[in-house]
Amino acid sequence: MASIRVAAARLASSFDESCAWGATPDGGMNRLSLNDDDKRVREWLVDQVKACGCTVKVDKMGNIFATRPGKNNALPPIAMGSHLDTQPAGGKYDGIVGVLSGLEVLRTLQDKQVETYAPVALVNWTNEEGARFPPAMVASGVWGGAFTLEHGHTRSDASGKTIKQELERIGFLGDVDCSFEANPLSAHFEIHIEQGPALEAEDLRVGVVTGVQSMNWYNVVLRGREQHCGTTPMDMRADTLLCAAKMIQAINAQALALPGSLASVAVINSTPQSINTLAGRVQFNIDARASSDALLAQLAERLKSTCTEIAEKDGVKIQVWDRIWKSPKTKFDENAVDMVRKSAQEVEGGRFKDMISGAGHDSVYTAKKVPTAMIFIRCKGGISHNPAEFSTQEDIQAGANVLLGAVLRYDEY
Amino acid sequence: MASIRVAAARLASSFDESCAWGATPDGGMNRLSLNDDDKRVREWLVDQVKACGCTVKVDKMGNIFATRPGKNNALPPIAMGSHLDTQPAGGKYDGIVGVLSGLEVLRTLQDKQVETYAPVALVNWTNEEGARFPPAMVASGVWGGAFTLEHGHTRSDASGKTIKQELERIGFLGDVDCSFEANPLSAHFEIHIEQGPALEAEDLRVGVVTGVQSMNWYNVVLRGREQHCGTTPMDMRADTLLCAAKMIQAINAQALALPGSLASVAVINSTPQSINTLAGRVQFNIDARASSDALLAQLAERLKSTCTEIAEKDGVKIQVWDRIWKSPKTKFDENAVDMVRKSAQEVEGGRFKDMISGAGHDSVYTAKKVPTAMIFIRCKGGISHNPAEFSTQEDIQAGANVLLGAVLRYDEY
Ligand SMILES: NC(=O)NCCC(=O)O
Ligand SMILES: NC(=O)NCCC(=O)O
Repeated sequence: MASIRVAAARLASSFDESCAWGATPDGGMNRLSLNDDDKRVREWLVDQVKACGCTVKVDKMGNIFATRPGKNNALPPIAMGSHLDTQPAGGKYDGIVGVLSGLEVLRTLQDKQVETYAPVALVNWTNEEGARFPPAMVASGVWGGAFTLEHGHTRSDASGKTIKQELERIGFLGDVDCSFEANPLSAHFEIHIEQGPALEAEDLRVGVVTGVQSMNWYNVVLRGREQHCGTTPMDMRADTLLCAAKMIQAINAQALALPGSLASVAVINSTPQSINTLAGRVQFNIDARASSDALLAQLAERLKSTCTEIAEKDGVKIQVWDRIWKSPKTKFDENAVDMVRKSAQEVEGGRFKDMISGAGHDSVYTAKKVPTAMIFIRCKGGISHNPAEFSTQEDIQAGANVLLGAVLRYDEY
Repeated sequence: MASIRVAAARLASSFDESCAWGATPDGGMNRLSLNDDDKRVREWLVDQVKACGCTVKVDKMGNIFATRPGKNNALPPIAMGSHLDTQPAGGKYDGIVGVLSGLEVLRTLQDKQVETYAPVALVNWTNEEGARFPPAMVASGVWGGAFTLEHGHTRSDASGKTIKQELERIGFLGDVDCSFEANPLSAHFEIHIEQGPALEAEDLRVGVVTGVQSMNWYNVVLRGREQHCGTTPMDMRADTLLCAAKMIQAINAQALALPGSLASVAVINSTPQSINTLAGRVQFNIDARASSDALLAQLAERLKSTCTEIAEKDGVKIQVWDRIWKSPKTKFDENAVDMVRKSAQEVEGGRFKDMISGAGHDSVYTAKKVPTAMIFIRCKGGISHNPAEFSTQEDIQAGANVLLGAVLRYDEY
């Protein structure tokens, strides 16, 4: 088993092939979930997995399951999963590394004519990023029972199009029920870029992910007063954008004051978008995270109370303060993590470390149902969700070998 | 002359008629310049002025000139002008009061068979608000020589459509050259709602406007770094929206620290609009005003230097800092102002006051070429650029009578 390795050149060329769909001139990717490029790369993936002996199922959330049979096909497959969708100004690695490494593992098994005991599957989860259809990981979330199918189908983009409509449009609204119960797996392994600076800082290729931090998303709408910018005295205003600006700073400051937490405002929209009319309505989102659920609850409470104070002082109303996503802290299965660790030990000779993920991943939701573990590989400068996102093919190859080893170990076990 | 008065009921009903186009359910108006409702209300206006003996000219900026002949038609007409376009979330009074009062004056002159010495004209200036096509007052600005026709034609809305394209589309791209020289007036009187709280505070219906404050608009684009909100440590970010938030607060604080000045940020746009990706690009506009050009220059310099400091500290680049509009302080013609004052004296029996306008008006640009003066009427709570904008018909009627008196006085003189 120790001698089986993925084919580096083939793995690298699958990036060149599949990143043709959604590539941007700046070297990045814009393959928002369920757009035309996502359709094309999905079709490409289906062709590739069929060519290496897999059967393909598509579920009602558009998740693609490619299964390579084993000796005992009554067993649910051991899965390798991640996502092919990207951020609007994203890179070629986030999610893509996971799916293409999984594909390379399937091809390697086929090449070497390895007959596993359980079937082995590759899963492409729909809309992991949540960039087009908030929240993130919604399709693995439906599979893992965190959201209803109805909730998943009705998430919509900024133009009002829903996931269900777009799945229909691109031909990926499958008929398999989207749930662990209807379409089980026996384990889920995911390789992903770290998206942070820790591995690079310690000059390590690979990390063993033992869990994922706690995260909440909020939607906030403020309502002040549209007023003339040139005639309304500064002290007679209910300036909604000024109020939002104070909140954004306060949100940041609260996270800085609470070690182990992060809070960010990245999306803002003001109306009526007229230079000489004070904004009367401002919408923004908060991304809040922390190393524990208790710490996140504390942060969330502080954010709400500080913003409430600011709004009251400014005569602005908080019309909406909705938590639109909550993903509690996740701890991965010890046994599955141990198989990743053993595999990393073999491939990297002890040069790896245990870590907690700052980003959410589909593994968060598979972990609710089946033994799950993740492998991180380092990425340049910790930069992610950016066209400059980068990991070397050598690091990806090392990670893919760790994935292959973990799957084979799980299969033996 | 003192005995001629406008017809209150007819004036009121012209509001009901013409505000049908662009009315919003909240009681306000959304008649952005050159949209379909603006087309319809323009067509309505042309019908009305023709019915009271006027000839109609449309110039290359779509300005409509309706002229009622006098005894000596070799003289340029004495004009009454304002605008029928509104803010996207605007009211039924800003600009509309001016055009409908002018129409009522024309109708009154016709009714009473008054033969003026000079012709009298009503002008509907295009895109006064600048809400759809920044900057404000661009079409009176072309007529007054502040902008070239090319500049006027190429101003564009958020979707990229230009003024020229939209004038063509709605059938109001006229063939008369847009300039004082090609199409002269001999004076310009404008009645407008105050858009501020001063008249109401002193329980006055009418103000005599002696000038307009100094104003600048800026377009600012910041460039930081798209990064993952969940994995990027707070101290490794170039968070463009956080930087913009600090600037918005600082811009406000600078104006507060400089009595006689105002500074507002009402329009903001962040990209890539993904909840878990820090904004890498933020665009916003500044509306800066002051009671003198020197004070505005001082404010402008402080805004730029504070924002530059903030950007440097935050590792964000100020990619664009463009002044997109500059309208220096305007002082109206003393003689024209005096005629408004005499007329106000007659109509309101001394119950009026002199004042400076905080808002820009088409009269700013006509004042560059011809004797110009303005009449303000009070509006409720000083609220403007808001659906709740309101003036009573009695106040509008008083203002229209002051306008009528000023025009007849100027005609005698
Ligand atoms: N890996 C990743 O960027 N997932 C998106 C979910 C999140 O915001 O953490
Ligand atoms: N009257 C009015 O609101 N004009 C728009 C120009 C300005 O912003 O002052």
